[in-house]
Amino acid sequence: MEYQISDKLKNMKPSAIREIFKSLTDPRIIAFAAGNPAAESFPADTLARLSSEIFEKEAVKALQYGITEGYPPLRALLEERLASRFGVKKEGNTLLVVTGGQQGIELTCKVMCNEGDVVIAENPSFIGALNAFRSNGARVVGVPLEEDGMNIEALEAAVRANPRAKLLYTIPTFHNPAGISTSFAKRKQIYEVAKKHGLVILEDNPYGELRFSGEEIPTIKSLDTDGLVVYCGSFSKVLSAGMRIGFLSAPDEVAAKIVVAKQVEDVHTNQFFQMLCAAYLQNCDIDAHIAGIRALYKRKSALMLKTLDENMPSVVRYTRPEGGLFLWCTLPDGIALDGFVQSALERFVAVVPGTAFNCDESAPSQSFRLTYATPTDEQIVTGVKILSEIVKEKNGGNR
Amino acid sequence: MEYQISDKLKNMKPSAIREIFKSLTDPRIIAFAAGNPAAESFPADTLARLSSEIFEKEAVKALQYGITEGYPPLRALLEERLASRFGVKKEGNTLLVVTGGQQGIELTCKVMCNEGDVVIAENPSFIGALNAFRSNGARVVGVPLEEDGMNIEALEAAVRANPRAKLLYTIPTFHNPAGISTSFAKRKQIYEVAKKHGLVILEDNPYGELRFSGEEIPTIKSLDTDGLVVYCGSFSKVLSAGMRIGFLSAPDEVAAKIVVAKQVEDVHTNQFFQMLCAAYLQNCDIDAHIAGIRALYKRKSALMLKTLDENMPSVVRYTRPEGGLFLWCTLPDGIALDGFVQSALERFVAVVPGTAFNCDESAPSQSFRLTYATPTDEQIVTGVKILSEIVKEKNGGNR
Repeated sequence: MEYQISDKLKNMKPSAIREIFKSLTDPRIIAFAAGNPAAESFPADTLARLSSEIFEKEAVKALQYGITEGYPPLRALLEERLASRFGVKKEGNTLLVVTGGQQGIELTCKVMCNEGDVVIAENPSFIGALNAFRSNGARVVGVPLEEDGMNIEALEAAVRANPRAKLLYTIPTFHNPAGISTSFAKRKQIYEVAKKHGLVILEDNPYGELRFSGEEIPTIKSLDTDGLVVYCGSFSKVLSAGMRIGFLSAPDEVAAKIVVAKQVEDVHTNQFFQMLCAAYLQNCDIDAHIAGIRALYKRKSALMLKTLDENMPSVVRYTRPEGGLFLWCTLPDGIALDGFVQSALERFVAVVPGTAFNCDESAPSQSFRLTYATPTDEQIVTGVKILSEIVKEKNGGNR
Repeated sequence: MEYQISDKLKNMKPSAIREIFKSLTDPRIIAFAAGNPAAESFPADTLARLSSEIFEKEAVKALQYGITEGYPPLRALLEERLASRFGVKKEGNTLLVVTGGQQGIELTCKVMCNEGDVVIAENPSFIGALNAFRSNGARVVGVPLEEDGMNIEALEAAVRANPRAKLLYTIPTFHNPAGISTSFAKRKQIYEVAKKHGLVILEDNPYGELRFSGEEIPTIKSLDTDGLVVYCGSFSKVLSAGMRIGFLSAPDEVAAKIVVAKQVEDVHTNQFFQMLCAAYLQNCDIDAHIAGIRALYKRKSALMLKTLDENMPSVVRYTRPEGGLFLWCTLPDGIALDGFVQSALERFVAVVPGTAFNCDESAPSQSFRLTYATPTDEQIVTGVKILSEIVKEKNGGNR
């Protein structure tokens, strides 16, 4: 049979990252490409204990259908935490549990965008979000990212040039892939641009808990006095990525439509793990647990940076992250990205080429993404040295 | 702010069933309206034991990101089971794990339909599917359901009248809400119509394991020699509804696009529960467990039918299901459905009005859906007697 695939899916390909992820099963590979959090981030023993308690005391409730909005005690606990930790106001907003932050992004686009509408995003940006927009038939327009966030003039220009712009997608804190954070000044400017042009801001904050140096910056959602901002967060980097529990806070009217859209996607998020998250928040010290994750990433990122500083030719630029999982490296113009990534893979080091994160899929890139979260210390040192060697070879041996 | 909600979500309302479901927290209510399986369907003790074992032996794998297609051992086990139990061929088809059968339905529509395309469905049909189609901007065209399945002439006419028809949605076994099964003869005819007109069939089979009388009927997917059929199933009615683990088998090319669409909806389905399902299939006798569920529903449906036979005026018609969870009742023209449902709720009996299941949301209905799965025996007797009383009152005391 000749299948007539829908226009929005016809030309979409599996995410480059997930394809690389599938190839990472080769044990010889040093996986700088993964987006996985460190295994140490998952408080497995505590989750095992709480899990037994749920089976003992509330098994049927945990295994039966729940409501689309989410498990009420978890919603209440998250509302408290988002208010106290991230300045997310309760009044006027509804907190929903979603199946990973990814679902929050996808649902927001589905609710706000018709096919052909435009989503403005940082360039580069998170591939899972870009593909979520594309899968809804939206067109993504990229705004160049600087060291302190989007170029505001370019943002203004993009909004003016695209009257069908509906949504402004941003990862202001520990950006994936670029590793940078948007300054407080730029967060306020982004909010003002959105307000002026009637855009909804989708603030994606999966790494917000993972700061290991520098000062906290208020979320854009904390500035939201006009009901412009949908805020997405996740437990993936602090409790478990595989359980797929995320959450969002959206203006009530938008949230009501997100509930309808979620209902037909998966009815509700895994009930058992929602109860497990609630039990964890209620009975355990999540901040102490997160402090441990931060210390781990601080040490690992420092090791990666030190190894880069000592070995990588200075023609390669790289970010010095204050949190999150990623480091973003940029090759000099003389070295072709494709060949570099290929050479690295041949020597069993996997990185993600920057092209995967481009808003315009056909645009070139000189950058690649590294993670320090999952490789061992030894792998970090060995892998960075291999990457440095390849640069030296391709750069004619010059530093 | 004045939100510009997307056209496809703008006029959608929360599912009537889920709204009723939320109101069922009142303990005085006899809940004939729910779509929940019986608590006894969940092998909680076994799941608790297997769950501890996963935490002991493979905690990190269970809590870390998995791949979009699903946990490989579970996929292999399901492929075997679908082949042996339901005649689903492995060659040419890909088995995927999805976040409940609901996600399988929604993804299939997203992949096959542009906005404005038509999905042909039985009328009445499962509201979660109808809303999934609507949320993708598809238009639903209903085909009248008879006691042995769709009216085939009406199906032919609907396809001819709708050149943008892409998908044919059917629940051939223990239909929700109508309780009937499509005969083998009609399954073959439906397949031929789809083949002739180049439609993809979406065969939804969440209740296929729950036959308690009569003869098994081969699935439409077992007839699929042309790669026309996407088959959706679920563990919701046999292991746990709250865990949200479903599965589908689709022709390889369609499945490849479903993977892309799923990746951006939730990355993958809850990894821990996928491993739990695999452990259950591998270590436990699921058929023995299902035999227990069938016996339970056989007894409960018989009690409901007996109470109806003894109390309900004969002006009310009702189906005699051979499996599944539901019984479908039709009032005589003289009794208005809305008033009946309202009167029942005032006497603390909740039923779902048939209007909720209409393909055309504004069409009238004289029918309502009852479940025997979750009410206690006493509630079944009391509730049916109350419904019978209301019919007698509204029917002027005549049988």
